[in-house]
Amino acid sequence: MLKPPKQSDWILDAHSCPGFKKYELISHVEKLPTIHHTEYIHIETPKRYGLINITENIEHILDRSKVIDGFCFVSVMHITAGVYVNDAESGLLKDIAKWIENLAPYGEKYHHHQTGEDNGDAHLKSFLTNHSLTAPITHGHLDFGTWQQIFYAEFDGCRNKRILVKITGLAQD
Amino acid sequence: MLKPPKQSDWILDAHSCPGFKKYELISHVEKLPTIHHTEYIHIETPKRYGLINITENIEHILDRSKVIDGFCFVSVMHITAGVYVNDAESGLLKDIAKWIENLAPYGEKYHHHQTGEDNGDAHLKSFLTNHSLTAPITHGHLDFGTWQQIFYAEFDGCRNKRILVKITGLAQD
Amino acid sequence: MLKPPKQSDWILDAHSCPGFKKYELISHVEKLPTIHHTEYIHIETPKRYGLINITENIEHILDRSKVIDGFCFVSVMHITAGVYVNDAESGLLKDIAKWIENLAPYGEKYHHHQTGEDNGDAHLKSFLTNHSLTAPITHGHLDFGTWQQIFYAEFDGCRNKRILVKITGLAQD
Repeated sequence: MLKPPKQSDWILDAHSCPGFKKYELISHVEKLPTIHHTEYIHIETPKRYGLINITENIEHILDRSKVIDGFCFVSVMHITAGVYVNDAESGLLKDIAKWIENLAPYGEKYHHHQTGEDNGDAHLKSFLTNHSLTAPITHGHLDFGTWQQIFYAEFDGCRNKRILVKITGLAQD
Repeated sequence: MLKPPKQSDWILDAHSCPGFKKYELISHVEKLPTIHHTEYIHIETPKRYGLINITENIEHILDRSKVIDGFCFVSVMHITAGVYVNDAESGLLKDIAKWIENLAPYGEKYHHHQTGEDNGDAHLKSFLTNHSLTAPITHGHLDFGTWQQIFYAEFDGCRNKRILVKITGLAQD
Repeated sequence: MLKPPKQSDWILDAHSCPGFKKYELISHVEKLPTIHHTEYIHIETPKRYGLINITENIEHILDRSKVIDGFCFVSVMHITAGVYVNDAESGLLKDIAKWIENLAPYGEKYHHHQTGEDNGDAHLKSFLTNHSLTAPITHGHLDFGTWQQIFYAEFDGCRNKRILVKITGLAQD
């Protein structure tokens, strides 16, 4: 049976924490040429809401950029959408959708609707993801753990939208 | 009449999604000189709370930096404030204020108040924005969509505070 | 006695705000050699949940990187943990733990648990922090305000986990 955590248990001291095991040097790159590569992804979701795994799309742009160490910056160009990093398991996607909907519900009497809009919830939902994310690139690949995937979160779809992807870093000479 | 969304509708597959239309190459810049330009903005809001559009302030610093492609990093130097990107519509600002206040209310019996502070809510509110944001720079300008604006969110004002702005990237040779 | 804020008070105009005092140029660095330095921190927390101040750990890596101006990117390599910047006061840590637990509670009937997992709450909790953060580096140090500290937030511990730290920027010639 599930026991809820005690809040006092949450506070750990890094100095006394037995969990810190080691530092591992992964990469140290210097004085290589710099590349900044920017693409937009154009998208129109078929429904109003959507959580869409765009990891492969990002990896294609990374390949085209030729960057071997740096950052992949992904940013929505709209204020009713977001991006985030999490697991792609289908049950979890339902949990995330439900959780976001509960915290920033559709159909409330938002002040914003006095302008004629009906997407006040979408603006608030975007606070629960982020307008942008940064993913690390090492040895030419996204330097992610096993389950990390990049998602585009649409909260006011059925229209043309753009995702900006800017890959910056060092390349082979 | 407003109908709430179905959660199962949120899950979209990028491969089968008709919405992915194209990639558009916007910029590819290489081997130009690098600039890192850092300024602090000093601010003291006249009230305890405030959502303040600082996009123009950031653009002025961008102009001074001479960067043509890179990133504009904006960070509050305090743990009771935040920054975010969203729309500047005045009704929406009220919705955002109400939403943040509901999720992290002022006046609760926070443990933090045993130190003599009364700003426990401000620390939690800062989790709903972010301590920092990154905005992309392409062709010498903020590479934003039409409605994206940069906001400073003050949750414990009426005192001197600082916003760090670090602009990094490539410049014309 | 505590009075709640009025939402209309939150909306401030930067142009008319008396709080904007000055811009202060802190640093402008050009054309120095670039360094990208990446380490993983390996960690296994002794309990399921934990908020752990890792600022010193990050500073050690910053020292090894030799970067004098740039960014310190810190990213969890898992989808049931996060990182954030806030104060280290012990009462506040309890407030943060309680707040995160309330908004994304353990023990709910999450769809994700149909896979055999019991950590649906941890995935949602990670949305309230972030999978990554970026800290500015100026003059060879974290360019933070007095109270800013970097925390690792573990929501599904007692197992080996990794934190990626990528320090990028300019070094002395």
